[in-house]
Amino acid sequence: MTELTQMSLTEAAEAVRAKAVTATDLVEACLARIEQTDGSVGAFASVQADEARAEAARLDRGEASGPLHGVPIALKDLFFTEGVPTEANCAALEGFTPDHDATVVRRLRAAGAVIVGKTNTHELAYGVSCPASRNPWNPQRMTGGSSGGSAAGLAARHVFGALGTDTGGSVRIPSNCCGTTGIKTTRGAVPRDGVHLISWTYDTVGPMARTAADCAVLLDVIAGFSDRDPYSSKMSLGAARGPAGLVLGVPDDGFFDGFETDPEVRAVMDSAVDVLGPIVGGVRTVRVPNTAEHFDAGAAIVFAESAALLEELRASSNELIGEEPRAIMESGAAIPGTALAASQARRTAFERAYLDVFDDQGVDLIVAPVNPNQVLAHGAVDLGGVPLIPATTQFTFPVNAAGLPAIALPGGFAADGMPIGFQIIGRPFADRTLAAVGEAFQHRTDHHQQAPWL
Amino acid sequence: MTELTQMSLTEAAEAVRAKAVTATDLVEACLARIEQTDGSVGAFASVQADEARAEAARLDRGEASGPLHGVPIALKDLFFTEGVPTEANCAALEGFTPDHDATVVRRLRAAGAVIVGKTNTHELAYGVSCPASRNPWNPQRMTGGSSGGSAAGLAARHVFGALGTDTGGSVRIPSNCCGTTGIKTTRGAVPRDGVHLISWTYDTVGPMARTAADCAVLLDVIAGFSDRDPYSSKMSLGAARGPAGLVLGVPDDGFFDGFETDPEVRAVMDSAVDVLGPIVGGVRTVRVPNTAEHFDAGAAIVFAESAALLEELRASSNELIGEEPRAIMESGAAIPGTALAASQARRTAFERAYLDVFDDQGVDLIVAPVNPNQVLAHGAVDLGGVPLIPATTQFTFPVNAAGLPAIALPGGFAADGMPIGFQIIGRPFADRTLAAVGEAFQHRTDHHQQAPWL
Repeated sequence: MTELTQMSLTEAAEAVRAKAVTATDLVEACLARIEQTDGSVGAFASVQADEARAEAARLDRGEASGPLHGVPIALKDLFFTEGVPTEANCAALEGFTPDHDATVVRRLRAAGAVIVGKTNTHELAYGVSCPASRNPWNPQRMTGGSSGGSAAGLAARHVFGALGTDTGGSVRIPSNCCGTTGIKTTRGAVPRDGVHLISWTYDTVGPMARTAADCAVLLDVIAGFSDRDPYSSKMSLGAARGPAGLVLGVPDDGFFDGFETDPEVRAVMDSAVDVLGPIVGGVRTVRVPNTAEHFDAGAAIVFAESAALLEELRASSNELIGEEPRAIMESGAAIPGTALAASQARRTAFERAYLDVFDDQGVDLIVAPVNPNQVLAHGAVDLGGVPLIPATTQFTFPVNAAGLPAIALPGGFAADGMPIGFQIIGRPFADRTLAAVGEAFQHRTDHHQQAPWL
Repeated sequence: MTELTQMSLTEAAEAVRAKAVTATDLVEACLARIEQTDGSVGAFASVQADEARAEAARLDRGEASGPLHGVPIALKDLFFTEGVPTEANCAALEGFTPDHDATVVRRLRAAGAVIVGKTNTHELAYGVSCPASRNPWNPQRMTGGSSGGSAAGLAARHVFGALGTDTGGSVRIPSNCCGTTGIKTTRGAVPRDGVHLISWTYDTVGPMARTAADCAVLLDVIAGFSDRDPYSSKMSLGAARGPAGLVLGVPDDGFFDGFETDPEVRAVMDSAVDVLGPIVGGVRTVRVPNTAEHFDAGAAIVFAESAALLEELRASSNELIGEEPRAIMESGAAIPGTALAASQARRTAFERAYLDVFDDQGVDLIVAPVNPNQVLAHGAVDLGGVPLIPATTQFTFPVNAAGLPAIALPGGFAADGMPIGFQIIGRPFADRTLAAVGEAFQHRTDHHQQAPWL
């Protein structure tokens, strides 16, 4: 029955609607696949097999409840799930069991999704690897992070969709490394109450799946204002626009200045432009702000915000927080208010400069790599001696600073067989348009259909 | 010729357009009035008589250049004026002479305004009095601040319009104390480049005049995006809506909890509701967040931001900064980044709660006092032992936190003959609507037409 797990989310949902399969069939197929392969992948922090079976049985007794009726989904272990531990791979949160669901989890359940498990994350989502998970394409390589378990579980065909969070690349980087698709959503578009956050102003929740069309379905379920998150926007996502009327911007050399971008990564981006060129309304070289204009300010803000957000946890259980996030938060706690205020002003100027690419240079989309590097070895903690956060987030972290949406899409494979992705960045609230452009790209390519041999 | 100075800005501009008077007539009348009365009022930090005469002569030789053609205007001495000292009443800025105009100053000049002088402010705009100026209604009373010189100059009929800035009430409080009209504009609606700021996220530039109609004319000239201020919004001000279609919210008792509001101040607000009631579409009691939900967070943000904004000045000339702003900035410099970050999160929640008054309680306008107190003695530094900023900004400072527009309007007079105003708070970018409602109020009242005997 595990071949059922090869379907896309859209196909799985349609199969349930058409009564070709039941929710129980899908859940059993996913649980079997997890049982069979997750020992070597390590996508899951916990699997709620009994609860998933009960929910599937309940759904199978009723009428179709929504667009995800009966579809197995995984949640990064940051999302509060009522009665189910939500530990963010952090010993200090061991046993933390929320008494309520996050708003996005409630929305998924209301749409008929079946939560089968909680996926591994870089500890507290504070990093760009995810040591507890292995890359399904090659267990010696990292999944990327922080939402590594979600991407690995999708690549391993454990589930049809998942949620991740993205502070500086944490949805896009694992999607890039695992050959899956994910959307870093517009700031404010998806409510974040009931999520272990590290930054009030950089964190976003986003859908992850194997295709852009699948991400679009999840996005429609989770997006929209909630009064439980003061940062949630009352602005609605714009309707999807097809690529024909859109101009694609390709960053000029200044965007790549100051660090090395792997030639195969660059080639994947170039070939994505070749695919998109004929279907968009135009392609234009644009000047996009370089990461150097933002990094120090962004790091100061995220580090200080995380130290403030996790102040209670740090006070009660600092010794149980891993060395890496603890050190970052300690540096964040040492940042003076004046330095933080000045960093925020620089971030605001940077955000404006990024938005001006669209407004002043006449483009609707910007293409970019996700990571400058190919998929690193499992366990890597630096790249050429530079810690992974500064070394690998040049293309992703600035997008969070600007609050923009971006979709990470599989774009090809390296000589060693590992996936390489790219991202398309859009205007605020153009998330659905990014999904539509991604879908158009995936109609013309088959990178997203490749599966690791597992 | 000084009777010319009794006209409103709108009347003065119309008189020039109709060639009933010249720009030179208006400038001479204003300069004469300043010469005659500013010795006792102290509205001006400096008067640019020669430049004003030359500009008036130039305007009189040409075609009408804009809606302010030939109209004498004053600028709070925070606004950069090319070649003219801009000292913010701070010894550390003595001799500071910008080499360019602020964007709003360029816009005023392009609209034909004649800048006749720079008005006194609370030092660095960091306070709610303005010791260098005297209240034209009674020299023993304060003008309020920080834009006290602008309000005093308007009440004294020195000029037809002026600009002020408002971080926590600095346009509205002096308007309230001097019986003039002023608009605290929507965050981002008016660019602030070329302005001595104390807060990136609370400071706003606003028009001040003797009538709401006059403020509307100034507002239209100064509002609108500029790429010189990264905080400037690309959203345009909405068109003015008349009162008939608007619902007026009157705060319930919780809004007034925790401090004393003077009965005459409350009575002025109540009588304003009586005037507005018949002309608006409805009046409704609403729950508006109490100042206690915001004050500490807002103070931490403004204090830390000012310490960061003025870091260079503090490093080079700290001993020349007055004791009050210096002490505030020193406390701001001591705020840890984590405390600032947490304060910003609280401010965001507060902003949402304030916006929800409109969205969830079905009102378009909220009426409130400006100060809880009547006009204080000149030189007062506290109210019942509490420093003036916390003691008198309960109704004004929260509006800045929420980024909303508010218009301060003369609403009556106390038993001792001093003016008492009130404010109307609106939705973001409804600044023109507030001016229109103010104009409707002023059609039905004559408080704004009263002039001090001077």
